[in-house]
Amino acid sequence: MSVDDLIKEGDDVLLYLDLKRSYILKIDAKQQRFHTHKGFIDLSELRGKHYGERIDSSTSFSFYVLKPTIYDYVLRFARHTQILYLKDMSILISHTGIGPGKRVVEAGTGSGALTAMLAYFVRPEGVVYSYEVRQEFLEKATKNLERVHLANYVNFINRDVTEGIEQKEADSVILDLATPWLVIPHAHQALRGGGTFASFSPTIDQVMKSVEALKNEGFVKIETLECIVRRINVEPGKTRPETLMIGHTGYLTFARKVDKEGPTPSQMEKL
Amino acid sequence: MSVDDLIKEGDDVLLYLDLKRSYILKIDAKQQRFHTHKGFIDLSELRGKHYGERIDSSTSFSFYVLKPTIYDYVLRFARHTQILYLKDMSILISHTGIGPGKRVVEAGTGSGALTAMLAYFVRPEGVVYSYEVRQEFLEKATKNLERVHLANYVNFINRDVTEGIEQKEADSVILDLATPWLVIPHAHQALRGGGTFASFSPTIDQVMKSVEALKNEGFVKIETLECIVRRINVEPGKTRPETLMIGHTGYLTFARKVDKEGPTPSQMEKL
Amino acid sequence: MSVDDLIKEGDDVLLYLDLKRSYILKIDAKQQRFHTHKGFIDLSELRGKHYGERIDSSTSFSFYVLKPTIYDYVLRFARHTQILYLKDMSILISHTGIGPGKRVVEAGTGSGALTAMLAYFVRPEGVVYSYEVRQEFLEKATKNLERVHLANYVNFINRDVTEGIEQKEADSVILDLATPWLVIPHAHQALRGGGTFASFSPTIDQVMKSVEALKNEGFVKIETLECIVRRINVEPGKTRPETLMIGHTGYLTFARKVDKEGPTPSQMEKL
Amino acid sequence: MSVDDLIKEGDDVLLYLDLKRSYILKIDAKQQRFHTHKGFIDLSELRGKHYGERIDSSTSFSFYVLKPTIYDYVLRFARHTQILYLKDMSILISHTGIGPGKRVVEAGTGSGALTAMLAYFVRPEGVVYSYEVRQEFLEKATKNLERVHLANYVNFINRDVTEGIEQKEADSVILDLATPWLVIPHAHQALRGGGTFASFSPTIDQVMKSVEALKNEGFVKIETLECIVRRINVEPGKTRPETLMIGHTGYLTFARKVDKEGPTPSQMEKL
Repeated sequence: MSVDDLIKEGDDVLLYLDLKRSYILKIDAKQQRFHTHKGFIDLSELRGKHYGERIDSSTSFSFYVLKPTIYDYVLRFARHTQILYLKDMSILISHTGIGPGKRVVEAGTGSGALTAMLAYFVRPEGVVYSYEVRQEFLEKATKNLERVHLANYVNFINRDVTEGIEQKEADSVILDLATPWLVIPHAHQALRGGGTFASFSPTIDQVMKSVEALKNEGFVKIETLECIVRRINVEPGKTRPETLMIGHTGYLTFARKVDKEGPTPSQMEKL
Repeated sequence: MSVDDLIKEGDDVLLYLDLKRSYILKIDAKQQRFHTHKGFIDLSELRGKHYGERIDSSTSFSFYVLKPTIYDYVLRFARHTQILYLKDMSILISHTGIGPGKRVVEAGTGSGALTAMLAYFVRPEGVVYSYEVRQEFLEKATKNLERVHLANYVNFINRDVTEGIEQKEADSVILDLATPWLVIPHAHQALRGGGTFASFSPTIDQVMKSVEALKNEGFVKIETLECIVRRINVEPGKTRPETLMIGHTGYLTFARKVDKEGPTPSQMEKL
Repeated sequence: MSVDDLIKEGDDVLLYLDLKRSYILKIDAKQQRFHTHKGFIDLSELRGKHYGERIDSSTSFSFYVLKPTIYDYVLRFARHTQILYLKDMSILISHTGIGPGKRVVEAGTGSGALTAMLAYFVRPEGVVYSYEVRQEFLEKATKNLERVHLANYVNFINRDVTEGIEQKEADSVILDLATPWLVIPHAHQALRGGGTFASFSPTIDQVMKSVEALKNEGFVKIETLECIVRRINVEPGKTRPETLMIGHTGYLTFARKVDKEGPTPSQMEKL
Repeated sequence: MSVDDLIKEGDDVLLYLDLKRSYILKIDAKQQRFHTHKGFIDLSELRGKHYGERIDSSTSFSFYVLKPTIYDYVLRFARHTQILYLKDMSILISHTGIGPGKRVVEAGTGSGALTAMLAYFVRPEGVVYSYEVRQEFLEKATKNLERVHLANYVNFINRDVTEGIEQKEADSVILDLATPWLVIPHAHQALRGGGTFASFSPTIDQVMKSVEALKNEGFVKIETLECIVRRINVEPGKTRPETLMIGHTGYLTFARKVDKEGPTPSQMEKL
């Protein structure tokens, strides 16, 4: 086991009890105990343990000490505001080619959940420009991003994105807001040639308007999809999809920017 | 428009006609023409254009010149062998916390589609160890990874992974093979404390055996899910999900490694 | 408007307020008022109205008076015990060819929800034989069937169906119980040649065992399917599938009885 | 085995080979042989057999002789024109309370697949009025209904239903046509008080317009749902949903007719 796996002052740890109950806390010399519904954890015991070890609460419940992943962090942001669900974020990121080194414009910031995912994946050379008109959301998101050590990769911009995007030559523009169609002309201007666009919308009405706006701006490769995740309960003799599920979060619409111009030869022929 | 957007010798370009027809080709001084079902493209015209520009074929069909994303590349590998679909790869990567700098063990390599996605996201400091027992698959995958400039981030290992994994302290182990349960004990040894595990399996029988093996090795946070993607046809007056869809690719099973040990206090009580 | 549509003593009426709130009550001279969360309805006002008319509660909420359909009735049984959901019942009935005049064996009765649907559709000449080992369920189901005027089409049998089915030459056998595989040999004996079999099971483990038992008994045309229903919220500017949905109720397995015998010529060849 | 199960002149039989191959034919003294891709069946051998018995083709393939169900028949109509799929028909019938004795108006007839299902379930006392503007469809549907001995329960009406429905006091009106919103005012007039309405539409645009029309006519209990059926391949070691599936057929919209009138007391309050 490597020294890296030693839990030390300042580390974030995920205390895992079961699929429904886990806690993220920061190891801090000033705090002695962490209280849960299943007794308290003695933090002095925690320091010096390795990740993956077990620690028992005062009432003898077994917790495991894990290092939080970006997924664990973002799940927690998600509880506090209406956000893009993780499955949607995952697909959005890989379909737009976002990855290390990319320059990405995002609007709106919301709780910063998608911002954190984007920042995580563009590291260490990329950057995320995140627009949010509501001051209080931006403050919360800034705190969230600092909490997960990703604020360095984000420029927060407190402005109404329907009035314009100041960045140019962006690799991708990602929208998660109520009126994406109002931002699509700005997205066209902000993107580099061939750049990728994605938008998340809960309703089909929003999708219809967005697709129309994308066509008007001359975007190509316009595709809309919906991702549905079913959890499966796997247990001998009882294996089955879960009874209650999230049936719908939203639709994802993708497109690529190309030059806007007059009719193409094949369109000319039809005239 | 930046100089970066100028198409130059050696570049890969995606020639986009419509959602069903697009082509990736390399700009190569020795090649004069690229032939498609809709006439040929004069490549000398292509050099010096910017990404996002239009180019018309000899029969006046309009193509757009895009830079291929990792998604565009991987879609093409996928045509040649049974692979993890992109939606599954996307969710697999974000749920396991894979990102820049991570050390990931993967088996089996197959066509290299998932390998390419993993390599893309662990850049520039991370590394992927990819096991494949079949020599001819490994050769094909190596070519595929070189083609997309990601081979530098991958160590290919021509060995039967059911006999063991030589790496230690891996951040993640990802399995896409017929008998994941035979590899799960090795995955436990290869992972660092708290490390993430994921497995893709088409059948529920495989999932049942894998979950049992994960429990036997003491993994925690074991979850299985299925991701279903529906394409939506968005067109005024004709908006609807597509008639024919991929109804099932496989199940994703996730887990976290913790120390394997004797019964916990709460289990002791029950004895 | 016909006289049939006049509400009269002894009629069942469905008082409809909105999609979440509606009530079935019997028009009874002895009862003056029907109390709801939205005020009371004066029943003397109700008599002499036509179906489809509006009636206002004491607190001025508008209810509509509808005649309950079999669907409205069965939804109410369903609240009291674990039952086959309506979508599953609907598909089960049409896939097995159940309709007017058929002789159907059902086990177990449960709350009688499926029994009521079966009885409704085999009328006026058909009959349902319904097995239930638990006396208290049978009593409740009998009351439910009497309440909806369908008890005349049902023979309730208080016996453990895993010990045998006394009927012969049944058109269909329908199972909704924990261990269908134990009843499948009896189903084979009870069915006429070519008769239809269906089974509802929540878990895939039950399906696997049932399909194996069906093959052992020589059933053919064995098919398993799952039916998923999504509710769509249709509202200008807000149209979308509902967020929370029933993700899984169970699997439906269908088969046809044929003579059980030795290997077929084509199987012989393989020997 | 009862005499009923003896195959005789004039009977329809379903010759079942496997899930993908089965044939319906009529026993006819003038025909000696029935030819399939797997050899011919000697029909003289068939007469006198019982349903459920095996019969071997000239090339030693084993077929089973089944009595076709309404489901088997309707599947065959469905191949010839765009129709309501069986799952949708099943749910449509049970949600509208259609059953023995009901008077149902249907438009348009199409191939008669839904007409046949409706006729099957309203027997022996009910009746289906089926509107179809295209003469050639009506002829085909009439033949289909005669073929399955259900034409006696259907009145075919060769008229454009958007111009009106002549029936009154119908229990249910069922629409499967391109512009349901044009027929909804007529449906309101044709239905008895509290009568049930259902419409099948492939696109969400049609649903939006239909729901608006239903609200304008004062219908209540308006609900839209989509039914998705997944086939499960159940085989030891290989159990999984099928790869390719029908992802979408259409949406089902349901409503109940009530009296159309001025604002309700609760609406008045808001004014």
